[in-house]
Amino acid sequence: MRRISNESGPYYGYTGIAAKKLVEASARPGDVVEVARSDGSRLMGTLMPKSEFSAPDIVVLKLDNGYNVGIRIDEGAKVRVVEGGSLTTHPGEPVSLSEEEVRPPAERVFVLGTGGTIASRVDYETGAVNPYMDSKELAASVPEMFKYATVDSVQFMSIFSEDMTPRNWQAIAEEVARYFEKGYSGVVVAHGTDTMAYTAAALSFVFHRGLPGPVALVGAQRSSDRPSSDAAFNLTSAVLVASRAPFGEVCVVMHGETGDSYALAHRGTKVRKMHTSRRDAFQSVNDVPLAKVWPYEGKIEMLKEDYRRRSRELRPENGFDDKVALIKFFPGMTSDLIDFLVDRGYHGIVIEGTGFGHVANALIPSVQRAVEEGIPVVITSQTLFGRVNLNVYSTGRRMLQAGVIPAEDMLPETAYVKLSWALHRTRDLGEVRRLMLTNLAGEINPRHELKLFPRWYHDRE
Amino acid sequence: MRRISNESGPYYGYTGIAAKKLVEASARPGDVVEVARSDGSRLMGTLMPKSEFSAPDIVVLKLDNGYNVGIRIDEGAKVRVVEGGSLTTHPGEPVSLSEEEVRPPAERVFVLGTGGTIASRVDYETGAVNPYMDSKELAASVPEMFKYATVDSVQFMSIFSEDMTPRNWQAIAEEVARYFEKGYSGVVVAHGTDTMAYTAAALSFVFHRGLPGPVALVGAQRSSDRPSSDAAFNLTSAVLVASRAPFGEVCVVMHGETGDSYALAHRGTKVRKMHTSRRDAFQSVNDVPLAKVWPYEGKIEMLKEDYRRRSRELRPENGFDDKVALIKFFPGMTSDLIDFLVDRGYHGIVIEGTGFGHVANALIPSVQRAVEEGIPVVITSQTLFGRVNLNVYSTGRRMLQAGVIPAEDMLPETAYVKLSWALHRTRDLGEVRRLMLTNLAGEINPRHELKLFPRWYHDRE
Repeated sequence: MRRISNESGPYYGYTGIAAKKLVEASARPGDVVEVARSDGSRLMGTLMPKSEFSAPDIVVLKLDNGYNVGIRIDEGAKVRVVEGGSLTTHPGEPVSLSEEEVRPPAERVFVLGTGGTIASRVDYETGAVNPYMDSKELAASVPEMFKYATVDSVQFMSIFSEDMTPRNWQAIAEEVARYFEKGYSGVVVAHGTDTMAYTAAALSFVFHRGLPGPVALVGAQRSSDRPSSDAAFNLTSAVLVASRAPFGEVCVVMHGETGDSYALAHRGTKVRKMHTSRRDAFQSVNDVPLAKVWPYEGKIEMLKEDYRRRSRELRPENGFDDKVALIKFFPGMTSDLIDFLVDRGYHGIVIEGTGFGHVANALIPSVQRAVEEGIPVVITSQTLFGRVNLNVYSTGRRMLQAGVIPAEDMLPETAYVKLSWALHRTRDLGEVRRLMLTNLAGEINPRHELKLFPRWYHDRE
Repeated sequence: MRRISNESGPYYGYTGIAAKKLVEASARPGDVVEVARSDGSRLMGTLMPKSEFSAPDIVVLKLDNGYNVGIRIDEGAKVRVVEGGSLTTHPGEPVSLSEEEVRPPAERVFVLGTGGTIASRVDYETGAVNPYMDSKELAASVPEMFKYATVDSVQFMSIFSEDMTPRNWQAIAEEVARYFEKGYSGVVVAHGTDTMAYTAAALSFVFHRGLPGPVALVGAQRSSDRPSSDAAFNLTSAVLVASRAPFGEVCVVMHGETGDSYALAHRGTKVRKMHTSRRDAFQSVNDVPLAKVWPYEGKIEMLKEDYRRRSRELRPENGFDDKVALIKFFPGMTSDLIDFLVDRGYHGIVIEGTGFGHVANALIPSVQRAVEEGIPVVITSQTLFGRVNLNVYSTGRRMLQAGVIPAEDMLPETAYVKLSWALHRTRDLGEVRRLMLTNLAGEINPRHELKLFPRWYHDRE
């Protein structure tokens, strides 16, 4: 039996008028309740536990369509329990899943909370989103995931992903390793979506020698207590992947399309956040996703054949160099930016060139100087799709002569993470080149097919 | 009657053994010829004029499928004219299109050559591509375009597009204005593809007050004398657009898909090179293309309704500030890069943030300092798709408090070009903000629909 505690408020987080009405109705999280407001409107859904930080007059219900909605209630509102929930709960007591109700599956998955929208709540006073919800609350609000695994969790850190640094990658990797060593069959990392792909790449290189099970990074594009939140769907998918997927790889598990049909598990080195707000913002670039995931059906379909199986061994190579820069070339860019990085003592530079990977010929002397001073310069393309090729045009050949490392079809972000990882292992230019050009974690895809380029809308507005 | 001269070599550019065999056969560019090599292989196609810079033993034929192929011939090879070409030509004389064969259409289009692959040739010695072909040669090799317009052309500059600078944008804009003033109904700018989208955005802002006709930027992903070159298809499409499209806007005209079915005219502020090598690398982001173009059928279908019509007026606002930087935020980025740009006297900074446009909270003091020193900081998203929104999370709100300008759904590259253009008009922060947030040339699309996100391949490898 697993216990989920709710320690954040007097009545499952509810206070004031909302707590009063819920206590009157003996409504508990997990119950299906109907809320009739004094304006005559009615809404039915599963009562959710709530953070103490939001306004006291809001009750959060999970609707049948999976959306969470916050209902503002007043003195005249009526709350009625329509159906008792499957969670055995006691007001003021820890929320528990009893053994009778949930037979704990054999697979054990650990959910590591790092912050981000998936662990955040809307502040109904200001409309802002803050990283409030701890991972235990999160688990309590997504009971679906317990179908697939016995889930333990901890809120390991609580930061927005834009504040993540290579040091955080290292700390997360250590924590992930710890739970595999404790025998968990998979680890889920709940993470802000902004830089989730960078962290996924980082963990991919740390664990490129093998993993006993999947590491599934997961996030939400809308906070868990918002209408249209994708948190429950994604988290359930991630737990399913972590418990049952056949691979020992790092992946990002997020909505595959805008509906609630399937999620995708993307290889950590090939995934990118491609949209500011869509639920299916995460997509694989220059590769197909690892797997398609139906969280409610418990189904995983492998899309790639060359995935790495779960291995007994766990040989992490952890650590990142935090003196690496990613810069994007643009017309009119002058060499002062590259010179600055060299003078400032940066250890490595990744450039997003244009097209096949070009920079202006005027920059090549600075690039050459960087290489001569022992600073690897790695070339990727700002087109994102396709493969760098510096052999076609004279500019590219001059860049090769200057000593740049063309990063094949690697994403610029992945090349940045990999260079940071490689430079922590060695500062030897030849060895860095060898590491960068060796496919360690699926970051280089030698097989490109036409279908890998997405299909664009070419019809009338 | 329009004359196209070939002044580059003794026999339409051919020398040595190739010239000898062609003279023996009285074969002229435009003729359908069969080449039988001493190894028994045969190839038939339209003889193309050739640059003096390639190896003497290569004959270039345009095959039925539209591909150009270079055939190495030797003493034992035989060349035979199967069918006289439609071009009336005289060895050693200018290649001419006689009045009987081509009735010059009323529309006059000017093709401005700036360099790039579309005006380049493979050096068969080294396999490299160099910007050799002048625009007259180019015109001679694409007779299809004369169906739609009387075409005049000049090779205005000859540089790779990665070497373009804001100064070049200004020069190109001046030249474009000049040909409209001379009464041309449209101008085609042949341009290297690497930074073509940046130049397209630049011209869009210069001419945002109106244009008498389309400015169609066009390039090739494969050089004109290569098998599978897209130069002829694209150039014909661009001439068709420049002569007959109903809009007075700047657009990029390139292959719409990998086949030779249709091209697309993308709005200059919404287009991006999304693939290193595909023929359909150019795609519209956060908008539908302006028009679909069938170059061989002479058909243009408008996809957008809100295009700007051709106007009588031509009121260019030319000029760009070349002290603007585009930087991409990455996890672990420290404030030294922003501080450097401020200290170095840059006039403006565009940042590609993560997700909704965030940077690390640790960078915000440096951002604030930049703004306080009068340097506009414009925020875009590295997701490319979607819209910047700094009101959702506390990080974003702190950035707004620091004074950043959120660039809506503008591409980072377009925001960079626009800021460079705006800063040439004014250094006043309030005025720059107003310009950046005003939709001048379709760079801000208020209407996003689900279909604007391309469809990704989610099936088995």
